[in-house]
Amino acid sequence: MPLKLNAADAGFEAAFRELLASKREDSLDVNETVAAILKDVRTRGDAALVDYTERFDRLTLTAETLRVSADEIMAAEAKCVSEDLAALSVAADRIRDYHRRQVPEDLDYTDADGVRLGHRWTPVSAAGLYVPGGLASYPSSVLMNAIPAAVAGSERVVMVVPTPDGVINPLVLAAAKLAGVTEIYRIGGAQAVAALAYGTETIAPVDKIVGPGNAYVAAAKKQVFGRVGIDMIAGPSEILVIADAGNEPRWIAADLLSQAEHDTAAQSILITDDADFAVAVERAVEVHLQSLERTGIASESWRDHGAIILVPDMKVAARLSDRVAPEHLELAVEDPDALAAQVRHAGAIFLGRHTPEAIGDYIAGPNHVLPTARSARFSSGLSVLDFLKRSSLISCNPDSLGAIGPAAVTLAQSEGLGAHALSIALRLEKSEMT
Amino acid sequence: MPLKLNAADAGFEAAFRELLASKREDSLDVNETVAAILKDVRTRGDAALVDYTERFDRLTLTAETLRVSADEIMAAEAKCVSEDLAALSVAADRIRDYHRRQVPEDLDYTDADGVRLGHRWTPVSAAGLYVPGGLASYPSSVLMNAIPAAVAGSERVVMVVPTPDGVINPLVLAAAKLAGVTEIYRIGGAQAVAALAYGTETIAPVDKIVGPGNAYVAAAKKQVFGRVGIDMIAGPSEILVIADAGNEPRWIAADLLSQAEHDTAAQSILITDDADFAVAVERAVEVHLQSLERTGIASESWRDHGAIILVPDMKVAARLSDRVAPEHLELAVEDPDALAAQVRHAGAIFLGRHTPEAIGDYIAGPNHVLPTARSARFSSGLSVLDFLKRSSLISCNPDSLGAIGPAAVTLAQSEGLGAHALSIALRLEKSEMT
Repeated sequence: MPLKLNAADAGFEAAFRELLASKREDSLDVNETVAAILKDVRTRGDAALVDYTERFDRLTLTAETLRVSADEIMAAEAKCVSEDLAALSVAADRIRDYHRRQVPEDLDYTDADGVRLGHRWTPVSAAGLYVPGGLASYPSSVLMNAIPAAVAGSERVVMVVPTPDGVINPLVLAAAKLAGVTEIYRIGGAQAVAALAYGTETIAPVDKIVGPGNAYVAAAKKQVFGRVGIDMIAGPSEILVIADAGNEPRWIAADLLSQAEHDTAAQSILITDDADFAVAVERAVEVHLQSLERTGIASESWRDHGAIILVPDMKVAARLSDRVAPEHLELAVEDPDALAAQVRHAGAIFLGRHTPEAIGDYIAGPNHVLPTARSARFSSGLSVLDFLKRSSLISCNPDSLGAIGPAAVTLAQSEGLGAHALSIALRLEKSEMT
Repeated sequence: MPLKLNAADAGFEAAFRELLASKREDSLDVNETVAAILKDVRTRGDAALVDYTERFDRLTLTAETLRVSADEIMAAEAKCVSEDLAALSVAADRIRDYHRRQVPEDLDYTDADGVRLGHRWTPVSAAGLYVPGGLASYPSSVLMNAIPAAVAGSERVVMVVPTPDGVINPLVLAAAKLAGVTEIYRIGGAQAVAALAYGTETIAPVDKIVGPGNAYVAAAKKQVFGRVGIDMIAGPSEILVIADAGNEPRWIAADLLSQAEHDTAAQSILITDDADFAVAVERAVEVHLQSLERTGIASESWRDHGAIILVPDMKVAARLSDRVAPEHLELAVEDPDALAAQVRHAGAIFLGRHTPEAIGDYIAGPNHVLPTARSARFSSGLSVLDFLKRSSLISCNPDSLGAIGPAAVTLAQSEGLGAHALSIALRLEKSEMT
């Protein structure tokens, strides 16, 4: 049974705080193991990769077979069901179209003092993409992680994916090709992160590493951070659905379960202003659970982390939602735009009764890599911006330096930084002379 | 004596690689000490802050005096030299003007399938700003860290600054007021980071923490990352100057020293295509060093980490610069735009002979918090974007869900996620019925 709360109850605030503070995952401390693997790959390169892959993936490789060949990718594509390939291609096109609209503009202007200022965006040269193997190897995640890098203009989009016992989902390779991945290596774990960060004889190092992974991968990403950029460390998935009585309970129940089925640590929360609707949704969840493929996972997540919250009105719903700062927020109400205007912290907002969250996981266009664990308060989903960086531009001529230089000299002197002041003052003398 | 290299020499590549790999700072391992302080502040709140401030800053506070009062800020302002205040005010205005141009636009469009898509930017509600105390307490850094948060629209801009023995630079308080800081607490170290991340009885927690600090502050920021957002961990400052023989050697020498005087671990590199000019700059550095206030620090930095690199032409200079990916890049050449077009990785680019780097530290407008230690390959200077986050928006109606839903169902099924497929399929049935 999910947690049931009523915002009108006396004990609500305490119970809601407990829900917010609840930890859904034990963080495994694998830092020392990971540090040793990183060091080993850094020292021994390809040989270390071959050893770890033998040990963890039961797969014998050589430096020559680390990389997945173009022939293998073609063969994988040929093995895919054509309907799946067609759907993947539609998804890739839509994701690419959306992400192209994220490309920011450069700035270049001359201000009233004659100082030319601006900024210029340039792509990260080499992006590394970690793709989990086995069950969690999702072609949709390949698209979502690789397309923003390709759209940004990264020359190298390097994917690593473990292939336990040599097995890989052929759709993952097909997705990589569609998404513009330029190199694929069949390695995983901390050793793959090390190879991307430090490089080996066969694998040139990258500048940024993104993509989800297990505790070892997450720890490795944290440890190489600074040498390379990384994306956020993703936690278990979450959905918060704000729904009124005008919804089909079975639809909302399916939406809640679409998060719950990801992971026993996933969280699904329903907020509604109608007690009967809440009961109807809860019943519909039970009915769906009887026929779902992943009913074990979904049941456990819904029982342990699910919640149904009854509120007196939707203003309260919006306020509570902002305190959760959910990864996914569905606004299944009559006027979703009005409600969206009251909400501030959410990774992605799904507007209206006909926008199930799952449409955003696959095909809508926006990225499905989104901030979890309340981090939507301060961070955003993966985007083209994650593969771009900005250089600021400043240009003075003698006149404009004459206009703004004296104030800079004053400030440098007040901070006791004489060479700073000198570097400006010398040029001001000169411009006074001319 | 700085390192001297000639790109035409046989041993150049090896020597340049060594320069790139050289570590300029020993990283102190203070993780355990910091973890204990974080835990203590989290448990005991204000009382812990009072204890640590007594111990580390020799200052006796109470919960009531943790916060710097409006009267104290006014009194500090009254103590400042009016010329300094005026310069600070010019700087604040220029920085604000530049950063306002960084505010990104929202996106809202309906695509060919009738799907409404977009994104919306919203500010981080509460920004925390760490300002070092004592010698490294720079009013210019207060402006550079606080103004982007204020421009982004953060309601709370909370500054923490240690005041050893109760002493604080009055210009720091004046800068805070100018920059739009809303609360100031006289605490520092890991305990201040803990207070910002977890909150205490007196200090409400923030969502993001930025600003430079010592090893304890850096370790504390890393440890609270995830609960709150953080900015990059800044390393020692760097400048790379590409200069031809058309420059005044004394100017370029002062530019190199303006980084060197920051810190013995700072790095200044000159790349030039003229051997005589290189000699002239080196001599001018020696002359300047005889009269600089901070000559000890600057001499040590220049001797231990400085470098002069002679190149056959400026194309080689641009290539080498990209391998350094410097925090600050000066292009003191005849046609700086043409050279800038060949460069890709730099935190800030200073164009032409009349744009000393120091003008960007204080008054030009762009942020002086910039990526160090080669991280300009994948990250950018501090900006308004660091205090904004993006929610993606998706809205389908029955028709547009009908158009794109089937492909999503196919993909969900291929990934074995039945509830994902169900949440879309249920709605498709319905739209087929209507």
